[in-house]
Amino acid sequence: MAEGSDDIQALIALMARLPGLGPRSARRIVLALIRKRGGQMTQLAQLLGSVATSSRECLICGNITDRDECAICIDPARANGEICVVEDVADLWALERGRAFRGRYHVLGGTLSALDEIGPDDLGIPALIDRIRDQRITEVILALNATVDGQTTAHYIAEALEGSGVAVTGLAQGVPIGGELDYLDDGTISAALRARRKL
Amino acid sequence: MAEGSDDIQALIALMARLPGLGPRSARRIVLALIRKRGGQMTQLAQLLGSVATSSRECLICGNITDRDECAICIDPARANGEICVVEDVADLWALERGRAFRGRYHVLGGTLSALDEIGPDDLGIPALIDRIRDQRITEVILALNATVDGQTTAHYIAEALEGSGVAVTGLAQGVPIGGELDYLDDGTISAALRARRKL
Ligand SMILES: [Zn+2]
Ligand SMILES: [Zn+2]
Repeated sequence: MAEGSDDIQALIALMARLPGLGPRSARRIVLALIRKRGGQMTQLAQLLGSVATSSRECLICGNITDRDECAICIDPARANGEICVVEDVADLWALERGRAFRGRYHVLGGTLSALDEIGPDDLGIPALIDRIRDQRITEVILALNATVDGQTTAHYIAEALEGSGVAVTGLAQGVPIGGELDYLDDGTISAALRARRKL
Repeated sequence: MAEGSDDIQALIALMARLPGLGPRSARRIVLALIRKRGGQMTQLAQLLGSVATSSRECLICGNITDRDECAICIDPARANGEICVVEDVADLWALERGRAFRGRYHVLGGTLSALDEIGPDDLGIPALIDRIRDQRITEVILALNATVDGQTTAHYIAEALEGSGVAVTGLAQGVPIGGELDYLDDGTISAALRARRKL
């Protein structure tokens, strides 16, 4: 038993399975927590416990919340007819941090993928189409990743909404703010060039 | 409130302060935990709680343990007269994983540092000298980091033990196993060259 106690070893093993961590970083984190155990570690344990019991998916949009319907879905100020479709809750959070979008969301929970046999029903796309119709949505922004699967999914949803009178848009592609051309992939540079605008 | 709930935000903020993590990696980890909350998150909360309450420093060597004296210090098979002095508990764990050392340890909890005003008393070096004398230690292995402060500390301890009859040794320096010369710093290459051995 190299690492202190059975509990410490189990804690390191569990931490090491978290995304981005491994045995080495898990050991460093656990040691740091033990050093300040009085405060941080107890607080972390309590928060993990309460988040574990209270967190669930918003029944409307799929955002993570501690109620049946998330704060965004029940905010009357956000019923502006716009719905932003994202792949993942992390993308919703990133958009909210940007504070540029004031409508509502729909989290797909993935993308269409022939390889992984994920079809429209697996992502609840029929339910999304119903929601767009029922809630009198006027614009659907497909904020999906600029990957092959993300763009395939965006095209599928855009086609399913054809003729419905809803405006379907996507995020602009181009050079990220602060981005150095030298470090961007060729596809991004070409897309930015094609979408060039007058200054 | 971009991130789900106040508890989730607090959890992310706390996680982001752990060594090697930041807001981005903390968000990814918390999202992954929420997705499998039933199992992993509750288990993690419980383990953190129990480690926080039960972990403490071994009264003899400074290792992390859940008893007054750690498993290494009470193992009669390890009373072989050898004591290995390390800077940090993480170093002790690393040596134990290597399974090459079968004696006991002493964790300094740091190194001598003029800059940070850390002297011999702050590291409990007088207590270490007493321990070496009382426990009839025959060899002291100074497994300190190959940094300036680590080596200063090693020299200080070696001098303090001069004339005591105890053999004082240090780890061999050289090319790590699998190490490519091209990627090593010059100091390591020079040290490995000076310590070259016949094949
Ligand atoms: Zn919602
Ligand atoms: Zn001990």
